[in-house]
Amino acid sequence: MGLMSRANMLSTGLTLYHSPYSPHSRRGRIFIAEKGLEVKHIEVDLARGEQHEEAYRRINPRRVVPALVLADGTSIAEVTAIWRYLEGRYPETPMLGASIREAAMVTMWERRAELDGLLPAVEAIRNVVTGAPGRALAGPHDYLRIPALAIRSRERVENFYADINARLAQQEYVAGDYYSAADITCLVTLDFAKRALGMTISEDFTALKRWHGAVSSRPGAVA
Amino acid sequence: MGLMSRANMLSTGLTLYHSPYSPHSRRGRIFIAEKGLEVKHIEVDLARGEQHEEAYRRINPRRVVPALVLADGTSIAEVTAIWRYLEGRYPETPMLGASIREAAMVTMWERRAELDGLLPAVEAIRNVVTGAPGRALAGPHDYLRIPALAIRSRERVENFYADINARLAQQEYVAGDYYSAADITCLVTLDFAKRALGMTISEDFTALKRWHGAVSSRPGAVA
Repeated sequence: MGLMSRANMLSTGLTLYHSPYSPHSRRGRIFIAEKGLEVKHIEVDLARGEQHEEAYRRINPRRVVPALVLADGTSIAEVTAIWRYLEGRYPETPMLGASIREAAMVTMWERRAELDGLLPAVEAIRNVVTGAPGRALAGPHDYLRIPALAIRSRERVENFYADINARLAQQEYVAGDYYSAADITCLVTLDFAKRALGMTISEDFTALKRWHGAVSSRPGAVA
Repeated sequence: MGLMSRANMLSTGLTLYHSPYSPHSRRGRIFIAEKGLEVKHIEVDLARGEQHEEAYRRINPRRVVPALVLADGTSIAEVTAIWRYLEGRYPETPMLGASIREAAMVTMWERRAELDGLLPAVEAIRNVVTGAPGRALAGPHDYLRIPALAIRSRERVENFYADINARLAQQEYVAGDYYSAADITCLVTLDFAKRALGMTISEDFTALKRWHGAVSSRPGAVA
């Protein structure tokens, strides 16, 4: 499969608003890279609070990245919605399942990875970081941090590592014997948990290590 | 549109494992009813802990309802995965968008409703209820309750009411001018927040009240 050279990429007229530090943005970027789509990437400066400024709020009133803007100006926010649009319009190299049954399996496993892995990993860091107070959750509303939640969420990520290792001892990839969006969310979770929380993969989790090496070596993983 | 009489329902050979008390189960039930599908419903007794027993763990190792079992025994868990399967196999009466663009809008709004509405509503009750300790989250792992999280999550649901009211002042339905799965998750959220948290819709939220009356009067709403 592999990524196409730039000359062979499929021109789309699409723009992705993203941040290099946002794990949700990376879910979008890898998907786009794996499908070989040429999409203009524009960085939103989260540290400067650009997501709260009027210009970006017109793109996504929920004030989170990523968002995909179509040639006619329509904005699509939320990673799963961006994926759904891209898969519908560019069905080659399916990432959301090549059949109805696969689509169900990819949706199920991708969702488990997000609910049990990525969301708690983000919670575990946002509820302890210093910086602007009252920003425990991304979005338009301010919420106080809850340190006890950071601890509980970290336990959840630890359980996620064990659970996904058990899954990968049975299957080559997360959703089955094919690479899919479920692998993207798992990879993003593990790499984010390592960077933000210092959580590495235990040597005992041999299946998880095998899988992490395989999916990290795909050209799209650098996106 | 309306529900078909039982005689006119589409036979599927599918079985839904669910609980009448589970809001996620209701998301599945309404979707099935709106599409006019004949699906066998089997109740999982959550109060008795049937979801933790071996028989149900074989259906869904994540030990949550609902789960859809196909005629060949394949299990599909997670509401969005069940929906994806049903929409793929029974595309009439689309609930996940009638076009690629609508599919993106439904996915985006449905997801916002779940992340900002339903998940915090569930958190707000699970982190305060009495009963078995250490069961702050559904699933195979035990986690302690965090009362401060229950308070913060309730604030989030309050903000969700205001945000979705603003949306419905602009659009007839949540995702646009058509009923969709995004409306199902919003309806389930509001009805669950009322029952479990005593949160009613403020008289000031006229758009939300108008919409709630309309979607509640659909035959599928009783599912």
